[in-house]
Amino acid sequence: MFKKRIERVINQMKTRKISQLLISDPKSIWYLCGVDVEPGERMFLLLLKENGQQVLFMNRLFPLPDTDLEIVWYTDTDQYVKLVSDRLLETSLGVDKDLPARFLLPILEAHPQISCCLGSICVDETRAVKDEQEIACMRENSLINDEVMRRAVAYITEGMSEKEVAAYIETQFKELGCQSLSFPVICSFGANGADPHHMPDDTRLKETDSIVIDIGGCKDHYCSDMTRTYFYNQISDKQKEVYDLVVKANEAAEAIIRPGVLLCDIDAAARNIIQTGGYGEYFTHRLGHFIGQSDHEYGDVSSINVNAVKPGMIFSIEPGIYLTNEFGVRIEDLVLVTEDGCEVLNRVDKHSNLIVHK
Amino acid sequence: MFKKRIERVINQMKTRKISQLLISDPKSIWYLCGVDVEPGERMFLLLLKENGQQVLFMNRLFPLPDTDLEIVWYTDTDQYVKLVSDRLLETSLGVDKDLPARFLLPILEAHPQISCCLGSICVDETRAVKDEQEIACMRENSLINDEVMRRAVAYITEGMSEKEVAAYIETQFKELGCQSLSFPVICSFGANGADPHHMPDDTRLKETDSIVIDIGGCKDHYCSDMTRTYFYNQISDKQKEVYDLVVKANEAAEAIIRPGVLLCDIDAAARNIIQTGGYGEYFTHRLGHFIGQSDHEYGDVSSINVNAVKPGMIFSIEPGIYLTNEFGVRIEDLVLVTEDGCEVLNRVDKHSNLIVHK
Repeated sequence: MFKKRIERVINQMKTRKISQLLISDPKSIWYLCGVDVEPGERMFLLLLKENGQQVLFMNRLFPLPDTDLEIVWYTDTDQYVKLVSDRLLETSLGVDKDLPARFLLPILEAHPQISCCLGSICVDETRAVKDEQEIACMRENSLINDEVMRRAVAYITEGMSEKEVAAYIETQFKELGCQSLSFPVICSFGANGADPHHMPDDTRLKETDSIVIDIGGCKDHYCSDMTRTYFYNQISDKQKEVYDLVVKANEAAEAIIRPGVLLCDIDAAARNIIQTGGYGEYFTHRLGHFIGQSDHEYGDVSSINVNAVKPGMIFSIEPGIYLTNEFGVRIEDLVLVTEDGCEVLNRVDKHSNLIVHK
Repeated sequence: MFKKRIERVINQMKTRKISQLLISDPKSIWYLCGVDVEPGERMFLLLLKENGQQVLFMNRLFPLPDTDLEIVWYTDTDQYVKLVSDRLLETSLGVDKDLPARFLLPILEAHPQISCCLGSICVDETRAVKDEQEIACMRENSLINDEVMRRAVAYITEGMSEKEVAAYIETQFKELGCQSLSFPVICSFGANGADPHHMPDDTRLKETDSIVIDIGGCKDHYCSDMTRTYFYNQISDKQKEVYDLVVKANEAAEAIIRPGVLLCDIDAAARNIIQTGGYGEYFTHRLGHFIGQSDHEYGDVSSINVNAVKPGMIFSIEPGIYLTNEFGVRIEDLVLVTEDGCEVLNRVDKHSNLIVHK
């Protein structure tokens, strides 16, 4: 598994004429060699050369990894950046976009002739296309997310606060085996739903409120992410009009996804429907984002992304309409691009949108 | 207040021959101009020139700041790093130690002749010496920390789990006005205390257990941090011997703190006592760390830090003895260096160490 991933990254390096790559994102390092470290402020790097050679730079304080890779150990009092510099050739060097100046500047100083560029895109493009193990994990996580959404719907009743519902949801993720949340729970009642990133507060649920629930759990390194919108006890004509438009936009986008389609065209498929319906100006964000070990990963579904989708990509499709002082509606699924279309990873019904007081 | 802080940073810049400084740590930016932004992945920079000129680079998505500084606004689709490059002169440039490669490399490319070095030490050295407003805030926070420790001691009884006590402590910080914890609560019973960073688990308290409680709350941007060790219902001769040694080490270190004393000598004052007492090899970490907006800030009290202390510095004094499979003892205060000594910010008694079953 790691060998295949490394091969894909090396192909990217060759395309971009990068002969050595310095990776600092701990998630990328875990992805490429299975060594799981939270380095904090300390230096944790994987050096990958185009001939396949790999060297890990690790602090003695990190847990002993289960790997047969070459490891260069250091302690806090060593000149540890020099240990990295000493391993670099005076050729082209790609560095992680997040590599901090405290590591990068000494390396550049030691190698004034090196040709340095941002190189993490070689890993990011590889991570954007999930392999079998990742797909299996993300499928399972989305099923858990479905179950949490169903439990939340069954739990909600009049007078509850957003915070109470959010706390309940968090508990359910833990109960179903998630180690953490993909992001803080969003649960917005009524007019609060018009702010796409409203944080749960003490607002209490009342008749006719819209209920935007945007949730995801993180299990075995991978994230889920889904949004559903409900209405409490009854739905007005305007609410129904807006809701139906958002479902239609969500389904229209999902319907055209297949290898070769441009990400901007998927965005347009949803956006056109909302625009034609008269609510274009209230759909204020891109249609979706890539997801994997983080909730938001490299890649998005937006009007300016002209890349074509490939089998194995997983991203969100989340059109929304936000009416200030009134209500908000967002409907989000994760989709997996298949050989001839896409698989929608979330199964919670998008056509049933009423929570009736019990 | 901001003017004085900026002046102190500029003095540091002049000493180090840095004519322009690019600051990316959001805590440093808040400290220097009061603009409070959590930028996430987005670029948020303060450019400070030695003539006092200041420019903030802000994304349109950030909240509108209350400042009369010059602001360069950008959007996600702008060439925003170029906006920064355009403002730089081909002289000496100090950059934040954490500035990511995705900002640093394009700047270096646009200015091949610029002399670039790590410059955040100018701000870090300034932040290490607290001013009046900061001291008042950290004093108050340590009093809150004292109160939480007292409540924890009153709460603990036989059979409780570490997790239960930790959860109670977290609630108390919130009740007393803290926005967050300085770090996750450490509450270790018996042999768990022999691991200085043991995380609370389901271990339940029993007779003769040592109880290591290491806690801190964050309020109005500043952190507190204190450790006390107790014994449940009774204390053995060995426990008493170890405890008394740690208190003595803590007090010996605090007794010699005054402007001009070297940080390594403070470490030695505590370490010598533990060594003479026969437990030197079980005191496995440095004596202390600086603290402020983060629990661990630039600066430490260790055997290799030959810097002299100055009035206004605040750091921890936390000797410990860790006996694997037996128990652990750590006693930690925050201290503020004054004109002629130091003020210990924590007041919880260090000589009463028994929690008696009620």
